[in-house]
Amino acid sequence: MCGIVGIVSGSGNYVNQEIYDSLTILQHRGQDAAGIVTCKDGRFFQRKDNGMVKDVFRTRHMRDLHGNMGIGHVRYPTAGSSSSAEAQPFYVNSPYGIAMGHNGNLTNAEEVAEEIYRTDLRHLNTNSDSEVLLNVFAHELMQQKKLFIDHEDVFNAVRAVHKRVRGGYAAVGIISNIGVVGFRDPFALRPIVVGKRVTPNGTDYMIASESVALSGLGFTLEKDLAPGEAVVITEQGDIYYQQCAENPQYTPCIFEYVYFARPDSMMDDISVYKSRLRMGEKLAEKILREWPDHDIDVVMPIPDTSRTSALELASKLNIPYREGLMKNRYIGRTFIMPGQQLRKKSVRQKLNPINLEFEGKNVLLVDDSIVRGTTSGQIVEMAREAGANKVYFASAAPAVRYPYVYGIDMPSASELVANNRTTEEVAEFIGCDKLIYQDLEDLIDAVSVGNEQIPKFDTSCFSGEYITGDITPEYLASLDTSRNDDAQSTKKALGQETVGLHNGS
Amino acid sequence: MCGIVGIVSGSGNYVNQEIYDSLTILQHRGQDAAGIVTCKDGRFFQRKDNGMVKDVFRTRHMRDLHGNMGIGHVRYPTAGSSSSAEAQPFYVNSPYGIAMGHNGNLTNAEEVAEEIYRTDLRHLNTNSDSEVLLNVFAHELMQQKKLFIDHEDVFNAVRAVHKRVRGGYAAVGIISNIGVVGFRDPFALRPIVVGKRVTPNGTDYMIASESVALSGLGFTLEKDLAPGEAVVITEQGDIYYQQCAENPQYTPCIFEYVYFARPDSMMDDISVYKSRLRMGEKLAEKILREWPDHDIDVVMPIPDTSRTSALELASKLNIPYREGLMKNRYIGRTFIMPGQQLRKKSVRQKLNPINLEFEGKNVLLVDDSIVRGTTSGQIVEMAREAGANKVYFASAAPAVRYPYVYGIDMPSASELVANNRTTEEVAEFIGCDKLIYQDLEDLIDAVSVGNEQIPKFDTSCFSGEYITGDITPEYLASLDTSRNDDAQSTKKALGQETVGLHNGS
Amino acid sequence: MCGIVGIVSGSGNYVNQEIYDSLTILQHRGQDAAGIVTCKDGRFFQRKDNGMVKDVFRTRHMRDLHGNMGIGHVRYPTAGSSSSAEAQPFYVNSPYGIAMGHNGNLTNAEEVAEEIYRTDLRHLNTNSDSEVLLNVFAHELMQQKKLFIDHEDVFNAVRAVHKRVRGGYAAVGIISNIGVVGFRDPFALRPIVVGKRVTPNGTDYMIASESVALSGLGFTLEKDLAPGEAVVITEQGDIYYQQCAENPQYTPCIFEYVYFARPDSMMDDISVYKSRLRMGEKLAEKILREWPDHDIDVVMPIPDTSRTSALELASKLNIPYREGLMKNRYIGRTFIMPGQQLRKKSVRQKLNPINLEFEGKNVLLVDDSIVRGTTSGQIVEMAREAGANKVYFASAAPAVRYPYVYGIDMPSASELVANNRTTEEVAEFIGCDKLIYQDLEDLIDAVSVGNEQIPKFDTSCFSGEYITGDITPEYLASLDTSRNDDAQSTKKALGQETVGLHNGS
Amino acid sequence: MCGIVGIVSGSGNYVNQEIYDSLTILQHRGQDAAGIVTCKDGRFFQRKDNGMVKDVFRTRHMRDLHGNMGIGHVRYPTAGSSSSAEAQPFYVNSPYGIAMGHNGNLTNAEEVAEEIYRTDLRHLNTNSDSEVLLNVFAHELMQQKKLFIDHEDVFNAVRAVHKRVRGGYAAVGIISNIGVVGFRDPFALRPIVVGKRVTPNGTDYMIASESVALSGLGFTLEKDLAPGEAVVITEQGDIYYQQCAENPQYTPCIFEYVYFARPDSMMDDISVYKSRLRMGEKLAEKILREWPDHDIDVVMPIPDTSRTSALELASKLNIPYREGLMKNRYIGRTFIMPGQQLRKKSVRQKLNPINLEFEGKNVLLVDDSIVRGTTSGQIVEMAREAGANKVYFASAAPAVRYPYVYGIDMPSASELVANNRTTEEVAEFIGCDKLIYQDLEDLIDAVSVGNEQIPKFDTSCFSGEYITGDITPEYLASLDTSRNDDAQSTKKALGQETVGLHNGS
Repeated sequence: MCGIVGIVSGSGNYVNQEIYDSLTILQHRGQDAAGIVTCKDGRFFQRKDNGMVKDVFRTRHMRDLHGNMGIGHVRYPTAGSSSSAEAQPFYVNSPYGIAMGHNGNLTNAEEVAEEIYRTDLRHLNTNSDSEVLLNVFAHELMQQKKLFIDHEDVFNAVRAVHKRVRGGYAAVGIISNIGVVGFRDPFALRPIVVGKRVTPNGTDYMIASESVALSGLGFTLEKDLAPGEAVVITEQGDIYYQQCAENPQYTPCIFEYVYFARPDSMMDDISVYKSRLRMGEKLAEKILREWPDHDIDVVMPIPDTSRTSALELASKLNIPYREGLMKNRYIGRTFIMPGQQLRKKSVRQKLNPINLEFEGKNVLLVDDSIVRGTTSGQIVEMAREAGANKVYFASAAPAVRYPYVYGIDMPSASELVANNRTTEEVAEFIGCDKLIYQDLEDLIDAVSVGNEQIPKFDTSCFSGEYITGDITPEYLASLDTSRNDDAQSTKKALGQETVGLHNGS
Repeated sequence: MCGIVGIVSGSGNYVNQEIYDSLTILQHRGQDAAGIVTCKDGRFFQRKDNGMVKDVFRTRHMRDLHGNMGIGHVRYPTAGSSSSAEAQPFYVNSPYGIAMGHNGNLTNAEEVAEEIYRTDLRHLNTNSDSEVLLNVFAHELMQQKKLFIDHEDVFNAVRAVHKRVRGGYAAVGIISNIGVVGFRDPFALRPIVVGKRVTPNGTDYMIASESVALSGLGFTLEKDLAPGEAVVITEQGDIYYQQCAENPQYTPCIFEYVYFARPDSMMDDISVYKSRLRMGEKLAEKILREWPDHDIDVVMPIPDTSRTSALELASKLNIPYREGLMKNRYIGRTFIMPGQQLRKKSVRQKLNPINLEFEGKNVLLVDDSIVRGTTSGQIVEMAREAGANKVYFASAAPAVRYPYVYGIDMPSASELVANNRTTEEVAEFIGCDKLIYQDLEDLIDAVSVGNEQIPKFDTSCFSGEYITGDITPEYLASLDTSRNDDAQSTKKALGQETVGLHNGS
Repeated sequence: MCGIVGIVSGSGNYVNQEIYDSLTILQHRGQDAAGIVTCKDGRFFQRKDNGMVKDVFRTRHMRDLHGNMGIGHVRYPTAGSSSSAEAQPFYVNSPYGIAMGHNGNLTNAEEVAEEIYRTDLRHLNTNSDSEVLLNVFAHELMQQKKLFIDHEDVFNAVRAVHKRVRGGYAAVGIISNIGVVGFRDPFALRPIVVGKRVTPNGTDYMIASESVALSGLGFTLEKDLAPGEAVVITEQGDIYYQQCAENPQYTPCIFEYVYFARPDSMMDDISVYKSRLRMGEKLAEKILREWPDHDIDVVMPIPDTSRTSALELASKLNIPYREGLMKNRYIGRTFIMPGQQLRKKSVRQKLNPINLEFEGKNVLLVDDSIVRGTTSGQIVEMAREAGANKVYFASAAPAVRYPYVYGIDMPSASELVANNRTTEEVAEFIGCDKLIYQDLEDLIDAVSVGNEQIPKFDTSCFSGEYITGDITPEYLASLDTSRNDDAQSTKKALGQETVGLHNGS
Repeated sequence: MCGIVGIVSGSGNYVNQEIYDSLTILQHRGQDAAGIVTCKDGRFFQRKDNGMVKDVFRTRHMRDLHGNMGIGHVRYPTAGSSSSAEAQPFYVNSPYGIAMGHNGNLTNAEEVAEEIYRTDLRHLNTNSDSEVLLNVFAHELMQQKKLFIDHEDVFNAVRAVHKRVRGGYAAVGIISNIGVVGFRDPFALRPIVVGKRVTPNGTDYMIASESVALSGLGFTLEKDLAPGEAVVITEQGDIYYQQCAENPQYTPCIFEYVYFARPDSMMDDISVYKSRLRMGEKLAEKILREWPDHDIDVVMPIPDTSRTSALELASKLNIPYREGLMKNRYIGRTFIMPGQQLRKKSVRQKLNPINLEFEGKNVLLVDDSIVRGTTSGQIVEMAREAGANKVYFASAAPAVRYPYVYGIDMPSASELVANNRTTEEVAEFIGCDKLIYQDLEDLIDAVSVGNEQIPKFDTSCFSGEYITGDITPEYLASLDTSRNDDAQSTKKALGQETVGLHNGS
């Protein structure tokens, strides 16, 4: 999962500060790396590096980011790319000069990479599927064979991209002398919105992963890009939309609502916040239905994401809601001293219980989801040590049983606690007295009530149903191999080697 | 307000990582600067700089912090010291080698600084009252005129310190070859606790500003230091306590409970969390009593501190509690580009409303306190823009009318919105439809229920009653002069000059 | 003037350290910026930044420079490129992945840049003519339209490059999966040599600006590339040479011998050191011939370059040689304090006279050349202050009257002290009692004795005769405009903006 | 060996830039670390760190170095202090505030350190004898028991220092509100000069290790401090001298002339440059006397120090002087790659031969001295590889047979190649065909001709005669133990631990 942003200021202002600001607002979508590319007089200006937005950009970098159009990116390691791959946006100088960043994952990245090299003679210097996407786009734009291109040529290139690549992707690019382009995969798996701000000096446009970035900067939400749709905002401030996919299907990723998006975002016309309230409501109904004689004394969220649904759950159950787990906002590092081994990071460094909220009570802990189960297990143990009588656990999402392949970093199947376990077995694994999972239909209901126009959601990690139709058992098996811990460390080693080409430092 | 910590590992382990960890747990008490001094074989090792804990300490620094005893400090600019004064701990080499850091404010720092120079011939190189405190302590220890000192000599020096300095202070020091010392002012204005951890290899002791630092590292709370009390933990792991003040009075600062301390801390045997629940309860009672026909639709905290009391307030009023203001966790900088002016930082960068929780509703916003009133005003305005019908405002603390002089950074009297205003005038200033302040007696009740042994609290910023008896109108006036904005900037300039002596970089 | 290097280790060793070492040996050719690109398994690894070699490369960078082939560059600001243009090597990913650095100056860079954009649709993001050269080369290689290319294709591309660009250039490039390429302009204006080192595990090859880089690493000089010649060293360690120009002419730059090259280099089969000895000899002969009754007491070099010729000059004149001007090896910066103006850097910071070598004597100062005349003037003044009776001045090179356009940074015509002045007028300008310039024929003789095969040298800055035939008065006038001081500072401003694309930091 | 400087600007200018400039001029005396302390309005400002002057001081540091008086230091690791001890100046705050740096070595540092702790209760946090010297001085100043001290009190303190410490030392200190002090040990072992500069606004004074720092800044040499003499320059610009030793003896270190000082310095009224000319002359006489039928073809210095004497030697022998060994001015690092061992640094990285100056010739290499003999051996080998027929070697200094204990870093006795070897054996060790050492009387003559007032020089490393009378065989043995390679690395480890107290970074 990553965050993307693009701004063209029709009013002629420099966009560096606003791209920076919007990247901080989208920081929750990726904290590994950050980058900005702006363009002025046909020339690009770039700064990117590993780290948080506030650490990557210093005054000296900001002063060198000229121009009234630009794009930005915050990176989160995704399934298809190594964790130490390069920061985005990426850049190619042929044709025209193009920079691009994306959120998502190409499921056929390897084949396309091979094609790019064999047919297009283009060199890829990293394992990142973003470099693949940029080069496909660049090649297709080159195929227009024009000295001066316009938005139609850009739409043609996007159309060709949709044909060559598969997977989930929301991308933002900048083309020298042309403008900024945004596009969304034909299944609308990854989110992307367009906003507008009218000023006395002209109209500014913005593309972003989430609406919260728009509102934070005073833009109003124009629309979510439809599946397969692209938008071009020219340097002069004109905007054009076009559907570039042949068979678009509206199936956004439901996990955005469960966990990833900020609650104050509107996503595909659905309030993330409200969908979480409804998740709590649905959970309460299930508990009342299936466990009418429950003895829960207090409902307690595991901060921060589940707070919204836990509050509504408590309210519907008519049971006190208490915040008995305090989050340490400032997390430090564990240093490896000479001759020492790395101490295991425990959940203790992140959460601290207020014992008197636990002592002698039957506590229902609420989390947004359960993935590996190890953290959940540590929290259950912490609750018992804090004096809880019984510890129940509710998950606002159903059991996560299948790997996610469209751009959220998730363990491979073999690492998912629910992969081959019943609910009771998972409860046993995490050590709680009872475990309640949200039902999948309830989750779908909770989200889709917000926008009845959306026929279907991608629920692959719960249902195993992959909407793009190309996720074979072999693909999943290869993922499993490449994502197990040993492979990770090898990848990391390779990844480290790849750092450097565009990052001088 | 600052955070202090000291650890002696009787089990012989290096304490650098644990001091670091505890400083991150205490980071909320000061984010300006951080420092650690450890001691091994009679030699000190130090690292300190401006910045957050995670930025100040790198692996190379940690590797140089040797020894099984050490102290740490996080700094917050306080009334008596310039914002760019040096990071703590400070160090003097005569006598014995001593390093010290403190939380609080000496109200007679200027006179004592003069004395130190005239009588003791000691040079002070900063404006920091911590350097004053250290030099008084050092001088008094020198007066013991011994080559080998023990805990009794240290207690004698603390006794003399209590006689020479006035104000609120909780200090931690380290003396080469002796051990770690902690002491608390005779009014117990600033908090300081002692914890213990028994291991198979020996007993470790820890001194800290708040109990949450103890529990986070697996120490159990032994005791809060009594007013005027001191503790010495020798390098060998022995612990000694002694009352060093002549007329100690137990009057801890009530603002710690309102705002500063972490909710999961126990402070002078009172749960901060519980005291906040009771503040909400008291507020609810006041509303029901004085405004029985209120038309509040929803209770909403201004995150993060007021969440606990707002939740209880809603519960007692039997009105829905909703978190409609989302906090931006990642705040970036505003860069000054050539030829630009600094844009005013608005509350918009910190908070984002979820409109649907406001639309058409009568909202009661709850904050822990109101100081200058400007932020409160911006939030009220934001609530109206988000569609609120009526905006009410409740403060878990009474009106802040007087400057605080014992170590919390607060504006001077003339900057306090409630200084010369009635509640109605404050409501008008911040633009809300109704304003409810906690009553002072209710606040005292809410806190003191936790520990009936405490006869009185310092409530000076609400009541104007200064427990140390030396706060004259002249003193307050001088504060006012030195703290107004122009003076601040001058101080900053001077302050910058003073940086450097102990900080090579 | 810049320095270039390329190494392929047929014995399979990593080349990062050796490229680094050779860049330090070539550091005198450019101290503005440094860069290295290596290649392993088809992937590039890069580090470049402004600064000296020892400052640009840290351990963390070196560890990321993998592979047994690579190229390096040290940059000196040249006529055609702004002083803050990007560090080299540059990189393009289409086709194949190519990185390149060069020493020299393209005199038709602007036209070619326009062509590249219009015909090839390639974007140039800097003002550097090196980016132009790389993109022409890349485009021509693309024209081979092959998936797998070999050395013949590379030679074809070089052949096309020679047709499109004009000026002086010695370039080194690296092509992913292919190997390292070096080529020299058809006039051999800039130097480039090839060396070989046989090891038990295979044969290593090296390309460099000067032979001293070869010998410093234990390589033996194979040959100087002929005018227009190219060399390809494959990743497997095979080496191929080919003449790629249609009408090559051997006219190396004579200024390399006068000033730029290290004395211990062999350049086009001529010992730089020996040529300087002969320059001294020729000067002595001229003095004896034209000024037989001279009253010179002592011959004194202006360190460091002229030491060799001054020593021989003294020897031939049979007059004592003394080193009375001491060079400060460690030069610091002049800091601009708030409210201060930059103090003018005087020659005093660089040179210090030993007065007793001057007192009462007639001193003949010897320098390699006189360009602007300001430094010479300051040194003459310094000699007088040190007590010299008379101060004579000899230049081992003739009067510099014309701008240099093939890659040595030299002032425009209007800034050259000898531009419109007679020898007597120059003497008056610099304040000496007598000035002796080397005669041009003597200089040519001094150099060409070393290698009678070279029919002619580029002597344009002395003679105004430009070998490439395309240097029009208009071109020189445009240089004058763009190089005067105001233009420089504007360029600098623009230049700063351009920094960043490939340099993340 | 270190360099010291102190400036008081009676004309009221800031001294930061001039101290910086003079430290770069003295950089040859120490390249390990650099530091500056200035004083304004009684407050100190400091910057110090490991590294070269140009790397230690950035604009931000310079801007914080306020005041019209200050001191500076460049450090070289000396016999008595560990190589990673702290940068100087050191600081103590009791009494008055004093900072100090010194050049030299205290031979009774350990005893005095013990005294300081036992009697004065002062803590030393490093192994540096400079910290010892500062604390002795501080204690003695404290003994004056005055609030306001003047130059007489300072002289009294220096007098007491001379009684407590032994060894060679030239020190510069700064006392808050008082001024700058300089003093020289009673044997005048280490150099220190005072200079003066009259300006329209007042008179500036400067103290420095060498006169070249004075002349470089436009100061004129007032005097060398006599043995035991001290100078006080008050903040107001008054200057006072006083003899503070009881039995001063003028015995400056002869090695300063041989190797350490810059040739353009006047030291104790002797021109270093002229003394080196005379060393060459004496050597020539010895060769002519003892080896009248020599077959030397060419005289060649090993750059840079021996150039002066080699030139005169060649002139007196009437044999050509040639500079056939070129020095690499830019030395890079050797990086340790994972899995690699550190490659041995060879003399090849520093020197490069011009073969044609060696081929078939009998070469006389001239160096200033021979210490361990390993580098000399490598150079002899290099000369043979470059084609020399015979390689002779001359040393401008006599055989170094004894350790130096007064502040020049030199190996212990067992590491000196001449320690237990005859001249022939040393010749064999370094592999030359003949070796000529300067005779000690000749060296003394060569230097003392410059100033007949100096009765004697310290020649201990040649003669084994230690002027301070306290250098026992036990002391030398302890040196040997502590300076052998293993001990060095242990010290280094300890040393690293000690870094940090005054250096925040």
